[in-house]
Amino acid sequence: MTSTGSDAPRARGSYAKGIARRQEILDRAIEVFAERGARRTSLRAIAEEVGVTHAALTHYFGSLDELLVAVYRESERRGDENPVAPPDTTPGESMRIAAQENRAVPGMVQLYSTLVASALEDDRPAAQEFAASRFARLRAEMAERVRELQDAGRLRGDVEPELAAALVIAASDGLQTQWLLDPTVDHEAALAMLDRLLAPPAD
Amino acid sequence: MTSTGSDAPRARGSYAKGIARRQEILDRAIEVFAERGARRTSLRAIAEEVGVTHAALTHYFGSLDELLVAVYRESERRGDENPVAPPDTTPGESMRIAAQENRAVPGMVQLYSTLVASALEDDRPAAQEFAASRFARLRAEMAERVRELQDAGRLRGDVEPELAAALVIAASDGLQTQWLLDPTVDHEAALAMLDRLLAPPAD
Repeated sequence: MTSTGSDAPRARGSYAKGIARRQEILDRAIEVFAERGARRTSLRAIAEEVGVTHAALTHYFGSLDELLVAVYRESERRGDENPVAPPDTTPGESMRIAAQENRAVPGMVQLYSTLVASALEDDRPAAQEFAASRFARLRAEMAERVRELQDAGRLRGDVEPELAAALVIAASDGLQTQWLLDPTVDHEAALAMLDRLLAPPAD
Repeated sequence: MTSTGSDAPRARGSYAKGIARRQEILDRAIEVFAERGARRTSLRAIAEEVGVTHAALTHYFGSLDELLVAVYRESERRGDENPVAPPDTTPGESMRIAAQENRAVPGMVQLYSTLVASALEDDRPAAQEFAASRFARLRAEMAERVRELQDAGRLRGDVEPELAAALVIAASDGLQTQWLLDPTVDHEAALAMLDRLLAPPAD
């Protein structure tokens, strides 16, 4: 952002107004997604539903992927006000709690899977950055949890924390997909099984 | 298909010709996907690349999802000529072999993740039928493998075969996604860890 001395206050004023307008559009977009799910569609169609011009949406969010990422992050931020799993929660159980929170917001699970699938395609930098950084952060947090549980003797000492973290996160994502397609797949029971497999031998 | 007596031979001839033409388009579509990946695009854009009219593509495949499913199934059918994992292969190892085969065909992994993400949206019956039936078949096959390994004393007896099957398939899908976004995630080592966790206690 470039500005000369006399323009600075006005620029800051416009900037603050821009932030407020962006937030307003984002709030409305979250409502729209909660109502309609994350059905793949054009930025133009979303702009219409949100009630802004296509140009405004492009100005504030750049691309469809960037809008979807903003919607997901904002919904997740709001969800963060929920109580978090205590640090001694087992890996599978903590993923179960996180999945349950996501499912409470309509359209969030579909939005997440759409973003991750987009991230695997070429030329989708916003989706790719979102998914890669999200998995990296989740793995780091989960590996730390695994280490703490190992130190406390509550998780097998012979598993590598980073690998176990990737495995638990992968299992949770994949189980959620299978469950959405077939509700007889017991996401929670399968994660509980993984927790049991990761528990130290009884002796 | 309705036909009167005298039209029957011609109708059968047209039908055979239609089948051949559909296969021809499918072959060309597979080449196009191998070159370009499964980037989300319109049926019209694919028709252009395949070199047929949009009307022809709609006639032979109905919708974009149906074309994508046909491309995936045909690629998979060709891959089936590869040697299969012997029945006593451990669950994680058999998923590793299957994933390796899929990765050998360019664009297949992206196509798969796109179809599964589409299946989670409303009003995508072709993608939904594909993903739901594929997971159901994979789970049944994997549960059978788990039971056989349990009978042979090569897998813990205290895990429920259907749940273990869902878990292994979920882990493999999720790990593949993480690996595609970050090649330092060791898909194979994490599946090997899951095999070790599922192995009977040493005593």
